[in-house]
Order: sequence, then structure tokens, then C-alpha cells
Amino acid sequence: MKVVIIGLGLIGGSLALDIKNAFPEARIIGIDASEKHVEEALLLGVIGHAGTMEDVKQADWVILAIPVNYIADVLPQLLDSINDDAVVFDAGSTKAAICKAVENHPRRRNFIATHPIAGTEFSGPSAAIHGLFDGKTNIICEVEKTAFKLQEKAVALFKAIGMRIRYMDAVSHDMHIAYVSHLSHISSFMLGKTVIEKEKDERDIFDMAGSGFASTVRLAKSSPTTWASIFKENKENVSQALQQYIANLQNFQQLLEKENFEALHAEMEDTNRIKDILNGIM
Amino acid sequence: MKVVIIGLGLIGGSLALDIKNAFPEARIIGIDASEKHVEEALLLGVIGHAGTMEDVKQADWVILAIPVNYIADVLPQLLDSINDDAVVFDAGSTKAAICKAVENHPRRRNFIATHPIAGTEFSGPSAAIHGLFDGKTNIICEVEKTAFKLQEKAVALFKAIGMRIRYMDAVSHDMHIAYVSHLSHISSFMLGKTVIEKEKDERDIFDMAGSGFASTVRLAKSSPTTWASIFKENKENVSQALQQYIANLQNFQQLLEKENFEALHAEMEDTNRIKDILNGIM
Repeated sequence: MKVVIIGLGLIGGSLALDIKNAFPEARIIGIDASEKHVEEALLLGVIGHAGTMEDVKQADWVILAIPVNYIADVLPQLLDSINDDAVVFDAGSTKAAICKAVENHPRRRNFIATHPIAGTEFSGPSAAIHGLFDGKTNIICEVEKTAFKLQEKAVALFKAIGMRIRYMDAVSHDMHIAYVSHLSHISSFMLGKTVIEKEKDERDIFDMAGSGFASTVRLAKSSPTTWASIFKENKENVSQALQQYIANLQNFQQLLEKENFEALHAEMEDTNRIKDILNGIM
Repeated sequence: MKVVIIGLGLIGGSLALDIKNAFPEARIIGIDASEKHVEEALLLGVIGHAGTMEDVKQADWVILAIPVNYIADVLPQLLDSINDDAVVFDAGSTKAAICKAVENHPRRRNFIATHPIAGTEFSGPSAAIHGLFDGKTNIICEVEKTAFKLQEKAVALFKAIGMRIRYMDAVSHDMHIAYVSHLSHISSFMLGKTVIEKEKDERDIFDMAGSGFASTVRLAKSSPTTWASIFKENKENVSQALQQYIANLQNFQQLLEKENFEALHAEMEDTNRIKDILNGIM
């Protein structure tokens, strides 16, 4: 079993580790635009071998874990060069443009569009961890366009690394994910920015921050390259979610200014329902 | 050692547990506006006895852990009824109005204004946990107004339950805490609201949410009563912090709309410094 992983960051690297663990006989070949990343991934044992695009031709599996805005460009060429039984999947955080880019490709049947909902705020090969995907959800879009036998093979691999499968159309995926994932990255980055700006001349002020601040600002440690890429790909949905978030914050501020603390209490009480929702997902 | 704790929620209850642990001979007497809370605190062993305001007269320690907007009203009467060697401290998230309310009180010397930076998103006596204050920061405001012997006694108690001490003036405390604590509660509550509103007719959509969303929205589980009270007390500072946060989000949205992804990348990269800051505090 020959697995070529293109992109050796948090997601590609963690897939390498978990696939090797589930399939010890797998030959894990890594490719990355950064030579430093390849060396690091080899040194850390994240991958077994450094490869080139030539390796794609004999691969059983090709995994694309590069920043999402490059996937739609790279994927058609990749499909051109694989063998007939290979499975190609990507791990991008948006799906519509990627599915669109290959909708008429003669090898569309070899591709399975996936979004593993897993990650941490860290990046690069050193961020790769064992078990990242265990118990997590993998969203598969337009599954009917993948050859049935290859679907089965892919789902078996996802299950072998512990993932639950969910099917969804690509346009709905991109809209919902803007709310439940992309928006929280912006809220966190801008919270971090606001506090850093305010406190830039103050020493030791972060002593005053507790675990609540740490939790809310955690995603502001995330990779700017990964996230600029996601915001580019999902611009319309993200902008709409952000618009609604800003409107809710403005409304909150107006209630505060008007000293309508009953209404603020009601807003917060109503949002406490998030407890039950989170209990369902965590 | 007779300790009267007024307010048996997360903070009052956890103080009860940690003080009892550090001083096993302590008699822990609880008072709460809610009879149900008193019963629950007794049942859970959070307090040893249910008390009345009469108990304050013979107390060695009186701890005020009620919603912060009531503290400035209750504190002067409390100081009227204590004995001469008693130490009274509060655990409110704002300090200026409280210090102001007792600045000319004849028993000001018996009061020490504190803000233990500790908590979770849960509330009520059942949220009380052992060790909540261990390794956390306790901010003491206007320490020079507390009698020196009583300061020493109070600091010894705070250290016995594992806290580090920081001194600060009350006005600066309220301004900085609006940024490093109060703002993150609003960002989290409004993130929860935005996502719940959008997804209210969708089933199962929260399957798509990962640990990032859970972390960013965690504070939206917090008590509306506690937080409406804090926002009331710290209205000016909170409104200013919120204004700057909204401005940063609007700027982010404009860059997104203009497709200036380089600038978005730079914003995020600059905010990545939060890594080093958080490493310092956690």
C-alpha cells in the first residue's frame, strides 16, 4: 500500500501517523513545497520517505493536505497522472470550488472530497500528532460521484483511523462550516488583536487573564497561511456570518449603553442553550 | 476560626472548600439569598453550617461572593456589624465602585478588596470545586487602606489556598479586566448566539463543529446573572473594549470584501504573538 501525502502540516502529518498506525505495511511518502518541512517530517518519523510528483503515478492513495486555495488548481493535474484504481482525497476546509473544479474530469470517480473536522491551533510537521482523527467527524461531499468500490475503500480507511462519516452537499457544507468553524477563528483572532493593541505598553497585564481568556483566544495561535486561504475560498459565506456576528455585538453594545440589563440577561440566558448543544458534540 | 461566606455559588463555594482544606479547624458558615442554594451547599458538604447575618458579628472572616452589583450596597452594613479584628473580603470582578462605597467607612481598615482570577463556566453550589484557586492570581486593590495586621492575615490565607498576590489600583484593575476577561465573555456569548440563530432549523449541524468552536464558545455557558451584574458595574470600560473589538472585526470584514488576503494574513500573523503571551500565563 503506497500512500503519497502532499502537504506535511498538522493535517497531512497527522494523517501520515494515523494511517501508518492502522496499516503498518503502508509506505508513507511525503511531498511538501517546503524542503524544510520534508526534512522535519522525515526526522520526526512522520513520513517514511521523501517523494516527488512521479510517485503519484504508482500510488494507491494520494492525499492532498495543502492550503485549501491551491487544491482546485493541483487536483485536476493530479487526477491526470494517477493509476485507475487509486483513491485521491483532499482535507480542505471548503468543498464547493474543489468539487466544481473536477466535476467533468474523466477521473472524477477516483476522487473523494472530504473535510476531516479535526485540528489544533498548531501547524507544521511538528504539530502532527497520533490519534488526531479518533472519534472525529469526516464530512464527505458529493459521494455519489466517487466510484462505489473506491468509496468503500476510502470509508474503510477513515473508519480504521477512528472517524465517523457524514455525507453532505458541498454548497451546504461551505455555508454551515462558515458559522461553526470559520467564524470562531475570526472572533478569536480579533479578540487577541484588540487585547494586544490595548495592552501593548503594559507589562504583566496578562497575569490578570484567566483560563477563560486563554480558551477564547486559543484559535488566534492558528496558522495565518491556512486561514487566509480558507477565508479566500469561503469569502461569501464567511462575510455573511461575520456580518451577523458584528450585528449581534452592536446590539449588545446598544443594550449596554441603554443600561437595559434585563435584555442583556435574556440574551445570555437564551444563549446558555449552547451547553446542551456542546454536550451533544464533545 | 469562624468563616462566614455570603453567596454560595462557584466562587463562594470553592472558597469554602479550599479554606476548609487549608484550615480543617475552620467553622464554615454559609449564607445565600436562595434557600435552595444553602440546602444544596449543606448537602454537598461545601459548607458546614447554614447561618444568618447574626453570625457576622462573631466571625473572624466574612467573605462576600455575591453578584458584583450588590457588593457596594451590602458591604457598608456588613462592616457596621463585624468585630474589630475581623477581616472582610469580596471576590467581585470589578473593584472601583466597591472601594468607593467604603472609602470613608470607619471600618475600612477591616476590608480587603480582592479579585481572585479563577472560575469555570459553571455556576451554583454544585459548581464549587476543590483547588480552584491553586496557582491562580489574586488581585488586591488599595491594599494600603487595610490595616497592616489584617493584610498579613489575609495574604497568609490566600497563600494557604495556593494563590499568587498582585497589587493594583482599582480604576486600572477595572479597565484592564474589561479587556482580558469581560470582553471575551461577550465575544463568546455573541458567537454562540450567531451560530444558534443561523442553525436553529437545522438538525445535526453541530456535528460539524470541532474542538475549536467548543473552546471559543465555552464562556457562553456562563451565568447570565453573574455577567449582567459585571457588565452593569463595569459598563464604561466594557463598552469601550467592545467598541474596539467591533472596529477590528469591521476592518477584517472590509479586507475580506476587498479580497486583500495579504493584509488579512498580516493581521493574523501579528496576532500570533498571543502564543508567547499565553505561554507566560498558563
